[in-house]
Amino acid sequence: MPNVLKASGQIEPFNEAKLRVSVQRAGIDPILVENVIIHIKSKLYENIPTKEIYKHILEFLQKSPYPFSHAKYGLKQSIMDLGPTGYPFEDYISEILKMEGYATQVRQILQGKCISHEIDIVVEKNKTRSMVECKFHNAPGTRSQVHVSLYTKARFDDIKEKNNLGEVWLVTNTKITPDALNYALCSNMKVISWDYPEKESFRDLIEKHKLYPVTTLTSLTQNQKQLLAEKHVVLARDICKNPASLDILGLPNDKKNSVFSECQFIYK
Amino acid sequence: MPNVLKASGQIEPFNEAKLRVSVQRAGIDPILVENVIIHIKSKLYENIPTKEIYKHILEFLQKSPYPFSHAKYGLKQSIMDLGPTGYPFEDYISEILKMEGYATQVRQILQGKCISHEIDIVVEKNKTRSMVECKFHNAPGTRSQVHVSLYTKARFDDIKEKNNLGEVWLVTNTKITPDALNYALCSNMKVISWDYPEKESFRDLIEKHKLYPVTTLTSLTQNQKQLLAEKHVVLARDICKNPASLDILGLPNDKKNSVFSECQFIYK
Repeated sequence: MPNVLKASGQIEPFNEAKLRVSVQRAGIDPILVENVIIHIKSKLYENIPTKEIYKHILEFLQKSPYPFSHAKYGLKQSIMDLGPTGYPFEDYISEILKMEGYATQVRQILQGKCISHEIDIVVEKNKTRSMVECKFHNAPGTRSQVHVSLYTKARFDDIKEKNNLGEVWLVTNTKITPDALNYALCSNMKVISWDYPEKESFRDLIEKHKLYPVTTLTSLTQNQKQLLAEKHVVLARDICKNPASLDILGLPNDKKNSVFSECQFIYK
Repeated sequence: MPNVLKASGQIEPFNEAKLRVSVQRAGIDPILVENVIIHIKSKLYENIPTKEIYKHILEFLQKSPYPFSHAKYGLKQSIMDLGPTGYPFEDYISEILKMEGYATQVRQILQGKCISHEIDIVVEKNKTRSMVECKFHNAPGTRSQVHVSLYTKARFDDIKEKNNLGEVWLVTNTKITPDALNYALCSNMKVISWDYPEKESFRDLIEKHKLYPVTTLTSLTQNQKQLLAEKHVVLARDICKNPASLDILGLPNDKKNSVFSECQFIYK
C-alpha cells in the first residue's frame, strides 16, 4: 500500500481501517461505506495528500444515491469554515455547552488582580462558575501548542479569586500537542480538543447533540455561511427551527427551500 | 505639516523634534543632522510612510562625507535582520546581559512541576538565578501582546521551585502593549522592551555597551549576515576582535577588508 501525506506534513502508510472508521462516522449505509473504500483504493498513489483522498470521498458521496451524507462527513473542515475570526467558534462552543447543561455568557470582561481580561465564555452549572478559553485554528494540520495552555492558566490565576471561578477549560477545534495536554491536565485544567478526551471529545460532543455547524450545509456558498456565522447563526439546526434566519441572505425562494431541505435531512 | 503613516498603521502629524532625536541617536555631526532634516522636509507628502522617511535618511547619510554614520542609525531594523528565527536574538541578548555582569546560558531545558521547558536564557548574578524569555519579532510595527507576558509567568511558576529561580525577565525587540506591560510588572516580572524602561531600555543597553549587531554592517549582504548570525557571530564587535570570524563567508580579501574597516569605524 502506498504512503499518504498528512496535512501536518507527516507521511504514513495508507490505513484502510482508519479510512473505514472515518467514513462510517458519516452515518451512511454500510454498503456505501464499502463502495467508498473501493473507490478510494483505486485512486491511491505514493504520497497522495489526505486532502485529495477527502476530496475523492466527497465527490463520490455527492454522486451517490444518498446525496446529503457528505454534510456529516466533512465535519472538521466545516468547523474551520466558521473562521477566519474566532467569534463564531466561541458562539458555537457556547451552544454545545448549553446542551451539556451549562448557563453560558460569551465574551465577558472580567477584572483580575493585575489587568482585565476578555473571557471567551463564562459557564455556570451546579453553582460552579468557570472560564472557558476557546482556541480556534482554521489551517488544517495545526495543533494547539503549549503556549496556549500556559497563557490560559496564567489568565485563570489572575481572575479566579476576584470572580469566584472554580474551573478553567481549554476548548480547541484542533488536536493538542502532548506538552500542551500534559501541562493543562497537571494544572487542573479541563481540556476538550478535536479528539480528546476519548468518548467526550469535541467531535463526540457535536455528534452526541447533533450540533452540526451551519457551515456543513453544502447548498450555501462560503460567503453566505460566513455572513450567517457573523450574525450568530452558527448551527444548521437554527435554520431547521427558524427558516427566517436565512432572510439576511436575501435568497430566492427555491434556493431557500433547498437549504431548508438539506438542513431537514441532517436532522431526520 | 503633513501626516505620516507609521508601520503600525497609525497616522500622526510629522514631528520635527522627534525626527531630530532619532537622527541624533546616530551620533553624527550636528551640522549633518540639520542637513538631514532639511532634506527630509523637502520629501514630505500627506501620509508618507515612516519607512520611506527612513529610506531617505539612509540614502542621504550614505552620500554624505560620513559614509558609515547610517550603520548606527538603522538599529531597529538591524535587530529585526537577525531573524527570521529567534535564536540569533537569544545569543545577542545573552551578550548584552554578560556586559551587565550576568553569567548566562542559552537554551536550557529545565524540568518544571508539570512539564519540561526550553528556557531561552538562564542568568545568574549575586547568587540569584533567573529565567529570561526572549520575544523576537521581525515585522515592523508588531508589539508584544499580553499573551506573551501571561505564558512567561505560567512557565516561570512551573519551574521556579524545582530550579531555585529568583526572577523572571521578558526581553523583546519591539514595543509592548500597555496590558502586557501592566500584567508583567504587577506579576513581578522584569521587562526590557525596545523603549522600556526609560534610560535602561533595550535600545539604551545596546548604545551603552556599543553592542551593535552584526546586521548593522552595510558592507555585508542580508544572506551573509544571516549566515554569521546562525554561526553565533551576532555582534559587529566580534568581527573587529576576530576578523577570522568572517572566514565562513569565503570573501575575497578586499571585501573582507572593507567589512573590517566598517566595523572599526563603528568602534572608533
